[in-house]
Amino acid sequence: MKLSLNTATVKKQWTLAQIIDGCVRHGIEGISPWRDQVAAMGLKPAVSSIREKGLTVTGLCRGGFFTAKDWRDDNRRAIEEAHALGAQCLVLVVGGLPAGSKDLAGARRQVRDGIAEILPEARKARVPLAIEPLHPMQAAERACINTLEQALDICDELGEGIGVAVDVYHVWWDPKLQSQIKRGGRRIFAYHICDWLVPTRDLLNDRGMMGDGVINLPLIRSWIEGAGYAGFQEVEIFSERDWWQRDPDEVLRTCKERLAIC
Amino acid sequence: MKLSLNTATVKKQWTLAQIIDGCVRHGIEGISPWRDQVAAMGLKPAVSSIREKGLTVTGLCRGGFFTAKDWRDDNRRAIEEAHALGAQCLVLVVGGLPAGSKDLAGARRQVRDGIAEILPEARKARVPLAIEPLHPMQAAERACINTLEQALDICDELGEGIGVAVDVYHVWWDPKLQSQIKRGGRRIFAYHICDWLVPTRDLLNDRGMMGDGVINLPLIRSWIEGAGYAGFQEVEIFSERDWWQRDPDEVLRTCKERLAIC
Repeated sequence: MKLSLNTATVKKQWTLAQIIDGCVRHGIEGISPWRDQVAAMGLKPAVSSIREKGLTVTGLCRGGFFTAKDWRDDNRRAIEEAHALGAQCLVLVVGGLPAGSKDLAGARRQVRDGIAEILPEARKARVPLAIEPLHPMQAAERACINTLEQALDICDELGEGIGVAVDVYHVWWDPKLQSQIKRGGRRIFAYHICDWLVPTRDLLNDRGMMGDGVINLPLIRSWIEGAGYAGFQEVEIFSERDWWQRDPDEVLRTCKERLAIC
Repeated sequence: MKLSLNTATVKKQWTLAQIIDGCVRHGIEGISPWRDQVAAMGLKPAVSSIREKGLTVTGLCRGGFFTAKDWRDDNRRAIEEAHALGAQCLVLVVGGLPAGSKDLAGARRQVRDGIAEILPEARKARVPLAIEPLHPMQAAERACINTLEQALDICDELGEGIGVAVDVYHVWWDPKLQSQIKRGGRRIFAYHICDWLVPTRDLLNDRGMMGDGVINLPLIRSWIEGAGYAGFQEVEIFSERDWWQRDPDEVLRTCKERLAIC
């Protein structure tokens, strides 16, 4: 499986233009940019540069946040940008509880309804939408879809053009992971890797480089491949104390090296 | 539902003897001690004092850690202590990955086998064992049983004398919570409450007082009662920065007050 770099991995050190150059320099063939970085570079220059360098856009991060106020316009723009970039999918971080709310079931209905509403536009733009189930520790603040099973239930309900992004960091603990990956099959639009550190010191920005934690990456990869996924492995590491502090060329070199054990 | 105090809630401020007195002073009728606090007081004095004050022992914390080396002896002692204390259950925090291991499925088998091995002794001592599914963020370090569904599958497999402790902190996010509580029925041996803070700053010791977070406690309680649970609500708050720093009488008073909104 080929390597893709999620641009969050070196976002503190490099601009998108620098990241694109870095990918080329290190022989990394895929890229998955975040929208704020695309906006900072400008959509057209980003599209041109990525196309010119021959990088595959394995995803655009992110749409979603259906429990926030401006979700309609924001997701429309995200679909347009994903279309322009030729992204293999638009990753949906679906949003958590609305401010002041404790109605988790209600938030989940809101998310399903929001996806249903933008799905026709995404289909028209030929942009596959990928629900990313986030770790249960993010249920309140970032995403109230927290298991692969739950995400696939929504996919089943909504039909074509919607699938999942499987990020090992969020799902590695799930006792039903193997069976749900099998169930996911061709609905798996993206596969994200990193590692779970012991101890983990922050709920958001303390992810590990592959091999530095406890996730059995080759095992999960074998399930993913068994389900028919033939895309890239996308490295996405949020790491305030470690990888965001390092020389980004070292980060990219390490990602490449560690791919051998994933 | 009556209130029980899990002694961890004021463990930084008070000894077990002080906590027992505190419960009496505040009209709290249940207590769930941790074994290190029982050991510090001495088992016999603890048993005498709790009996004399007429407190109900809603649980003993904890047995488990079946992936650690001394699990057999440790769980035997825990069962004896729970028996001596007349505890309504022995809470099992089952243990995470063995040191250096990435074999989560193997750890889970080890846990199931360990429970199966101690279960006859627990039955003989009439000590119900309560598996406590822990939040997925604790899968590596503390417990590889992470959903109520997973815990109940083990209960179904092992038969009588084994059930679950439902702690809202660990399960509130679960899309299958309502259906699994219903399934749990008379297998629910304990019900623990606190709250999930936004933001949560630590994976272990940043729990909130009921009402300070985002968990819909009355809703979950209605499910628990609907399943036939007629025991205590046990408050268990690990809070390094807040509640462990306060006057313990204030903590107990607040627990009692907040019960009205649980």
